[in-house]
Amino acid sequence: MGDLVKKIAVLGSTGSIGRQTLEVVRALPDHFRIIALAAGNNTSLLAEQVNEFKSKIVFFEGDKTPLDKMGLDYKFLPLEDIACHPDIDIVVAGTSGKVGLKATLSAAKAGKKIALANKESMVMTGEIITAEARRNNAVILPVDSEHSAIWQCLRGETAPERLILTASGGPFKGYSISELEKVTAEQALKHPTWFMGTKITIDSATLMNKGLEIIEACWFFDMPIDKISVVIHPQSIIHSMVEFADGSIKAQLSYPDMRLPIQYALTYPERLSNENFSKINWNDMKDFTFEKPDYNSFPCLKLAIEAARQGGTYPAALCAADEAAVGLFLKNKIGFMDISRLIKQALDEHESVTNPSLDNILEIDIRVRERVLQMAGTNS
Amino acid sequence: MGDLVKKIAVLGSTGSIGRQTLEVVRALPDHFRIIALAAGNNTSLLAEQVNEFKSKIVFFEGDKTPLDKMGLDYKFLPLEDIACHPDIDIVVAGTSGKVGLKATLSAAKAGKKIALANKESMVMTGEIITAEARRNNAVILPVDSEHSAIWQCLRGETAPERLILTASGGPFKGYSISELEKVTAEQALKHPTWFMGTKITIDSATLMNKGLEIIEACWFFDMPIDKISVVIHPQSIIHSMVEFADGSIKAQLSYPDMRLPIQYALTYPERLSNENFSKINWNDMKDFTFEKPDYNSFPCLKLAIEAARQGGTYPAALCAADEAAVGLFLKNKIGFMDISRLIKQALDEHESVTNPSLDNILEIDIRVRERVLQMAGTNS
Repeated sequence: MGDLVKKIAVLGSTGSIGRQTLEVVRALPDHFRIIALAAGNNTSLLAEQVNEFKSKIVFFEGDKTPLDKMGLDYKFLPLEDIACHPDIDIVVAGTSGKVGLKATLSAAKAGKKIALANKESMVMTGEIITAEARRNNAVILPVDSEHSAIWQCLRGETAPERLILTASGGPFKGYSISELEKVTAEQALKHPTWFMGTKITIDSATLMNKGLEIIEACWFFDMPIDKISVVIHPQSIIHSMVEFADGSIKAQLSYPDMRLPIQYALTYPERLSNENFSKINWNDMKDFTFEKPDYNSFPCLKLAIEAARQGGTYPAALCAADEAAVGLFLKNKIGFMDISRLIKQALDEHESVTNPSLDNILEIDIRVRERVLQMAGTNS
Repeated sequence: MGDLVKKIAVLGSTGSIGRQTLEVVRALPDHFRIIALAAGNNTSLLAEQVNEFKSKIVFFEGDKTPLDKMGLDYKFLPLEDIACHPDIDIVVAGTSGKVGLKATLSAAKAGKKIALANKESMVMTGEIITAEARRNNAVILPVDSEHSAIWQCLRGETAPERLILTASGGPFKGYSISELEKVTAEQALKHPTWFMGTKITIDSATLMNKGLEIIEACWFFDMPIDKISVVIHPQSIIHSMVEFADGSIKAQLSYPDMRLPIQYALTYPERLSNENFSKINWNDMKDFTFEKPDYNSFPCLKLAIEAARQGGTYPAALCAADEAAVGLFLKNKIGFMDISRLIKQALDEHESVTNPSLDNILEIDIRVRERVLQMAGTNS
């Protein structure tokens, strides 16, 4: 293999995406080397990862004792320095929230391949990041199953006419507004299909997750918002589709397993066999069903589409308001339907900045979150 | 457009594929010019087509009066001379039966693009035709919806691991053997989804059609028979799929409309908008269901797979026996289940030729048909 081994930094290595990335690397050891690992507070797991993958560069926010105890030999570097480090080919941006923003930008400036799982990066700063990537020949590779599906369907193609994002519909599909007023965080956290973090799980329940994915898709695939549709497909086997100029549609299918799109981003343009992935058994396949999203019960989807249409800093404000509102819901301080109400209020009073800088966006992020807490009559 | 106009010969212009090809050309007049039209006995329709498309080269087997009456100015050429004519870029091989064999071969020798709808060409002489095409840089473009779907899914791809052909299951899906013993040609000709000729409609009812498509797929995509599966999907929206090395599956979808794969073959690698094609409405989509084929009630599918596995002239013998047996069924001389019985008998006693010539195959074709009539105790 020699030079064909791809050298990887995993930002957010102890999170869901990070751990699944390391599972892929573990299954295909001849193809990858983990050069750098970056985590937050879970330094016990980080220490194990550093030990297993012999990564030389490390970042963490928490207690360093677990790393010291194992007598590991590593170099500590800030997240942004890891993202642009010359020894690294692919940066897996698997941190959640704004932590990843500056690191993703740093990787884009350094012309890296960026396997991007961090939703906020594209939603809040899509314009800045895609421009920076273009300027520096960086390549942004989607990791989300929906965007990976679209990316796979676009491969070798011409004339895409419409992107069709599929959505499971979340745990409250079919609920009326009055039923939704009463649902709790606990109920929402039992998501049927995917294993994910808490914030993204609530976003799946409100369909904000799909809204954010629509905004991401605009930037990933340079498509106008009005050429992106959402269809509810509760079985989550079709991960998304592309319709072409002639009306032909291509879809990408698999059992739900985040490791597949992660691996695709890492091995692209190759596809490699991985014995851990279950292949679809068509003799045992349930019916596929399709439904129109219910925009009344799930107003977050509409709010996201509207924010994308408005452009400017509306998507950043949407993202910030959502993060604050979901935080309040997780602490049982507001109801489920209050999430979309607070976001709508925040967007209604938002004054958008055109061609925003990263600093503009970060400032708006802080201001909008504070405002949401204020509107909710709470300050935690 | 100028030189970008593709110059087309339509062999079998009055048949189902031919007429739909001309519909595509009619909708995209700037992209194509019909240079040659070839038909059998329906010279009235041929005359109208020659008049409409101003094609200069013509072949027909029937009465020339309709052409003379319209005072048309044309040059009559044999089918094989049309297929290799220097003025032609794409040969649409839309004749059914063996009529198309020699013409397809002639087009392959002349290095043409061949939009191939003639099943017999690939099933009976796949080895000869693909070798000839390779030698002369001819390109064989599939027109069948299933093969077009696979071809579209393979576009720009790497590492296909399995081809998954979908099948509607035909009008007798779910019937027991004893029920099938009693079905009539009349019942079989009411095919639920596609508009097709009579022979192919019976082949759809016995699933021989799918069997022939499997054999074709081996040649079209250079795949071993054991990497091709069939799944019953009665809604006929997914036209076929490809599974890749990583387990990811790509599917091609549209409402059933043969004009779409015909157009794709003609415009490839471009995709063009055509206002006659209905785009899928996901808000109004029925459930997709999937079933395992019933090899007991539909033994033709198994016979075709076995013939492909044996290779040599087994597929040619299969094709000949099927044509003879279906002919008998259409004349009500044998029952539905007798079709597969006669084919099985014919294959059991077949002595295969390795590396057969076209003459070998044509001779086997005649002998096997005669034998089937003999076995059925009839001589018509």
